Amino acid sequence: MKHPNNPIGICSWTLGLDHDPAALAAECADLGLDGLQYSGDHRAGPTAAEIRRALDDHGLKLLGLDPYYGASAEPAQTSREGAIDYYRRVIDFAAELECPRVALQGLGSWVRHETDADTARARLVEYCNTLGTHAHDAGMDLVYEAINRYESPVVRTAAAARRLRDDVTEAKLGLVLDSFHMNIEETDPEDALETHGDALAGYHIADSNRGGIGVGHIDFGAQRRVLDRIGFAGPIMIEIVLPENGPATPPVDDDQWAALRRQVRYSLDFWRMNG
Amino acid sequence: MKHPNNPIGICSWTLGLDHDPAALAAECADLGLDGLQYSGDHRAGPTAAEIRRALDDHGLKLLGLDPYYGASAEPAQTSREGAIDYYRRVIDFAAELECPRVALQGLGSWVRHETDADTARARLVEYCNTLGTHAHDAGMDLVYEAINRYESPVVRTAAAARRLRDDVTEAKLGLVLDSFHMNIEETDPEDALETHGDALAGYHIADSNRGGIGVGHIDFGAQRRVLDRIGFAGPIMIEIVLPENGPATPPVDDDQWAALRRQVRYSLDFWRMNG
Amino acid sequence: MKHPNNPIGICSWTLGLDHDPAALAAECADLGLDGLQYSGDHRAGPTAAEIRRALDDHGLKLLGLDPYYGASAEPAQTSREGAIDYYRRVIDFAAELECPRVALQGLGSWVRHETDADTARARLVEYCNTLGTHAHDAGMDLVYEAINRYESPVVRTAAAARRLRDDVTEAKLGLVLDSFHMNIEETDPEDALETHGDALAGYHIADSNRGGIGVGHIDFGAQRRVLDRIGFAGPIMIEIVLPENGPATPPVDDDQWAALRRQVRYSLDFWRMNG
Amino acid sequence: MKHPNNPIGICSWTLGLDHDPAALAAECADLGLDGLQYSGDHRAGPTAAEIRRALDDHGLKLLGLDPYYGASAEPAQTSREGAIDYYRRVIDFAAELECPRVALQGLGSWVRHETDADTARARLVEYCNTLGTHAHDAGMDLVYEAINRYESPVVRTAAAARRLRDDVTEAKLGLVLDSFHMNIEETDPEDALETHGDALAGYHIADSNRGGIGVGHIDFGAQRRVLDRIGFAGPIMIEIVLPENGPATPPVDDDQWAALRRQVRYSLDFWRMNG
Repeated sequence: MKHPNNPIGICSWTLGLDHDPAALAAECADLGLDGLQYSGDHRAGPTAAEIRRALDDHGLKLLGLDPYYGASAEPAQTSREGAIDYYRRVIDFAAELECPRVALQGLGSWVRHETDADTARARLVEYCNTLGTHAHDAGMDLVYEAINRYESPVVRTAAAARRLRDDVTEAKLGLVLDSFHMNIEETDPEDALETHGDALAGYHIADSNRGGIGVGHIDFGAQRRVLDRIGFAGPIMIEIVLPENGPATPPVDDDQWAALRRQVRYSLDFWRMNG
Repeated sequence: MKHPNNPIGICSWTLGLDHDPAALAAECADLGLDGLQYSGDHRAGPTAAEIRRALDDHGLKLLGLDPYYGASAEPAQTSREGAIDYYRRVIDFAAELECPRVALQGLGSWVRHETDADTARARLVEYCNTLGTHAHDAGMDLVYEAINRYESPVVRTAAAARRLRDDVTEAKLGLVLDSFHMNIEETDPEDALETHGDALAGYHIADSNRGGIGVGHIDFGAQRRVLDRIGFAGPIMIEIVLPENGPATPPVDDDQWAALRRQVRYSLDFWRMNG
Repeated sequence: MKHPNNPIGICSWTLGLDHDPAALAAECADLGLDGLQYSGDHRAGPTAAEIRRALDDHGLKLLGLDPYYGASAEPAQTSREGAIDYYRRVIDFAAELECPRVALQGLGSWVRHETDADTARARLVEYCNTLGTHAHDAGMDLVYEAINRYESPVVRTAAAARRLRDDVTEAKLGLVLDSFHMNIEETDPEDALETHGDALAGYHIADSNRGGIGVGHIDFGAQRRVLDRIGFAGPIMIEIVLPENGPATPPVDDDQWAALRRQVRYSLDFWRMNG
Repeated sequence: MKHPNNPIGICSWTLGLDHDPAALAAECADLGLDGLQYSGDHRAGPTAAEIRRALDDHGLKLLGLDPYYGASAEPAQTSREGAIDYYRRVIDFAAELECPRVALQGLGSWVRHETDADTARARLVEYCNTLGTHAHDAGMDLVYEAINRYESPVVRTAAAARRLRDDVTEAKLGLVLDSFHMNIEETDPEDALETHGDALAGYHIADSNRGGIGVGHIDFGAQRRVLDRIGFAGPIMIEIVLPENGPATPPVDDDQWAALRRQVRYSLDFWRMNG
C-alpha cells in the first residue's frame, strides 16, 4: 500500500519560538519538516510579513494557524463579543499570512464558564456559525480538533467533534484528531480515525506521554495503516513535548533541545519510511 | 495462579457523597465494595465519629484518607507552614478515624508555585520528612500516588515516585499506581508495576478515559497478571468518572448514576472473577 | 453503534460429534447457539436426512458445510479428478442438506504436492472455477477461509484469499477470516477485516491459543468494532479447541467438556452482549 | 536501564546453508551477528572441524546446537533406543564442536506416537534424565524450547517447559522462549518471560508471522523491557522465515535473500539500539 505524500509539519508552540520567526523557520527547516502550524496570533509580536518572509526563506509551507494564546482564563472576559472579535482577527491574520486554515477548538475555553454543558455547546455552535460566515468571505477553511478533558471543557472525542460539524451549518468544519488526546479520550483510536475518516482534515502525532513516536505506548503502525487505507492526504503535525516537561513546556536547555530534536527526527523518519 | 484477596474499595470523591457519610456508606455497601478511601478532610463537615459510625453500620473498611480538597490554588497561600499545618491535621483526622494510611500526593499542589522543579522537589522531600515524623508518632502509614501531568506539577511517574521514596528518610512512603494516570505517563504500565512492585502499596482502577474496565482500552488482564505475579496484597481502589463528565465530576442525574453503578459493578466483577 | 444480528454457530468438528447428529444438535442447542457449520461429509456416516432432522428438532440453522475430512494426505491421491469429484459430491451433499454454502479451503491440501507455488495456485483457481459452475447450478454459495501456514500450503492471508477471489471467474468466492489464523498470518488483523470487509462472508472466533475469548491475547473488542462499523451481517462461527488439546482434539473427558462449554458460553455472551 | 550485552546469533536452518559452513559463516558475519545456533547434526555432511574452522575464520561464536533434522516421522523408528542414541551422538558432536549447549525439544517428535499425553511426557522425562547424565559427563548444558502445537505434541508453553525442568533430576534444563511460538501458545508472553525468567537460558526473535521485527504485530519493546528488567544475559537468536515461505522455507531467490537480510539487519538494529 502506498502512503499519500502528506505534508508533515510541527505545531510551532512546542518549540517556544513563535516570537522569532527567523529562528522558528530555521529550526523547522533543519528538522527536515515540510512546514508548520503557527501558534502565535496577531498580538504575538511578529507581523504577518515577517512570518511569511521567514517561511519563504526556508521553503516552508504554512499549514495552519492555531493560536495557542487564544483562550481567556477570566470568566468576566469570556463574552460572546470577545470570542467572536478575537477569532475574526485570527482569521484575518491567517488570510494576511496566506494560511489555508484556522483551528477553532480554542473556542472551548471561551465557553468554559457557561453554567451547563448544553448551553456551552449551543454557544459553541453559534460562534462557529458566525465565524464560518466570516471565514467563507475570507476564503479560509476552518478545522476543529478534539482535545483531552484537561485542555477543553467540551468536544473531547471524535464523535463529539463530528456532532459539532453536523450542527454547524455555515462552515464545513474539518476534524483534526491527535494521537495523544485520543489515547485519553477514545475507546479505540483506530476506530475513531476510521469512522470519521471522511471528515478528517488533520492528524497530530505525539505518543501517550506526549514524547515522540516510541517514547510512549501508542501503536503508530496501526494508526498509520488506517490513514493509509482511508487515503488520508491532509497535513500531519508533529506535536511533541518532552515527557518531563509536561503538559506544555518547550525545551529549556541544550540537553532538552537535543532530546526534542532527536524525537522529532525519529518521528518524521518513522512516518515517512513506513510508507 | 491464585489472586491474593485484596480489599477492593472506591475513591469516595467519585460518588460526590463525602458530605453525607450515611448515604456514602449505603452506596458503597450496595455496590458490593469492601471499603473506601475517604476524600473528605477535617473541614469537610462530617465528624470522624459520624463517618466511623456509617462505615461500621455497613461493615465497610476505611482503607485510606486522601483529601480531595487539600490543594490550595492560590500561590500566596502555599506557604511551608500552610502545607505542614494542613497535612498534620489530615493525619490527626485519619488517626481519629482509625484509618491506616494517608495519601500525600496532594502536596504537589502546595509546591506548584516554586520557581523551578528542583526547588519544588526539595520542598516536597522536606515536607514529607516533617510529616513522616508526625505520622510515625500517630502510627500512620503514608503513601504517595503518581498522578498525571495535568493533576500534579511533580512526581508523575512511578520512577519519580520511587526517587521521592528513596529521598524521604523519615517515612517509608508506599507507592500508589493508577491505571488511568499510568496510561498517560508511563511508557509501559506493566513494566512500572513490576519494577516498583516491592514498594507498591496501592493500585487504582480506571480505564483510559476514566470509565470502568472495558470502557477504554487499557489491558487490565495484563495489569492484573503482574499484580498476581508479584503477590500484591494491598488495597485496590476503583476510581471511575463517566467519560462525558471528565475530568472529575460525579454523576449528575439518574441515568448517570445508573451508568456509574454499572461500570463500578462490572469492574469489581472483572477483578474478582479473573482470580 | 448497533451490532447486526449475526447468526452465531459453531464449527462442529470442535465437538467431535459429527457422527451423531442428534447428540451434536442437542449440544448446540444447549450451548445457546443459533446453528452450526457441519464438518462431516457425505462419507461420514449420517445421512442428510438424519442431520436435517436433528437440526430441525432443535430449531438450529445449518450455516455452512466445511468437510474436515476433505484433505487427502497421500500425494498419489491428489489428482485433479480426485479433488473435483470429492468437492462436487460435497456440494451435492450440501444441497441435499439445504445448506446455503460450502467452504473450499480444504482444496489447499489437494494442491500441496505441486512442485511450486505458482502451479499450486493456478490449479487452485482452476478447481474453484470448475466447482463454481457446479455450485452455481446447485444454487450453492462458495466461501474460502484463509488458514494458517501449518494448515494450508497456500492462501494463508486475507490478501491472498482476495487475490484468489479476483482470479476465480466462475464463482464469487466469499472470504472467511478467523481470529486464530489471523493472529499468526496477518500483520494487523483489524486492518485485514476492514480492507476486505466488502468481500467478507464469515468470521470465526478463537483466541490466540485457540481457546475461547479471553483465554489468549486477541483484542476481540477491536475486531468486533471493525465488524460493527463495516456492518458485517454474515454468520459467525465459534471454533474453540482447549489449548492443552491443540491443534485439533475435541474434549476427551468430563472436565474438558465442562471447560469447553464454559469457554463457548463465555465467548457467545461476550459477542452478543457487547452489541 | 542498561541492556546486558547479550550475544545475538541466528538459527542457521533459516538460511539453508548448514551443508556449507564457509558460506554460512560468511553470511552470518556479513549480517553483523555475534554467532549462530547450528541446526545441522553429525550426519549432515560437514565435519566438526570444518564447521569450527569456518566460524573461527569469521570470529563467530557457536552459541548452541539444535539439530533441525532430529525428528523421526516414522512411528516404527521412534524407539527409546533410537531417541537416546541419536541425541547422545548430537551431544558428542556438540562437544567436538566446543559448543556450550544442546537443545532437546526435538525429542518431542520421538514421543509423538505414544498413545496418551501422560505416557509421552513420562518418556520425555526419562529421555532427558538419561541424556542429562551423558551431557554432564561431556560438560554440556541442555536447554529445552517451548514450541507451538503444530511443531511439537508436548511441552508447548513456558509453564509446561518449567514443569519438565522440575521433573528432570539429572540435568538443569534451561528454558528457551521464542516470540513467534509464544504468540500462539501463551496467554501473555511478557508474563511468561517474567514468571520463568529465573530459568530462562535463551530467547528467540521472530514476529507473529515469523518475519523480522515489525513485519507482524508482536510488541518487541515490551518483551525487551522484561528481559532488561530481569537482567537476562543469555544468547538471543534471530529465527526469521519470510511470511510467504512459512512455515520453514529458507529464501529461494535473490529477492527473497535481499528481503530476509533486510529483516535480519533491522531486527538486529532494533534490539541493539533500544538498549
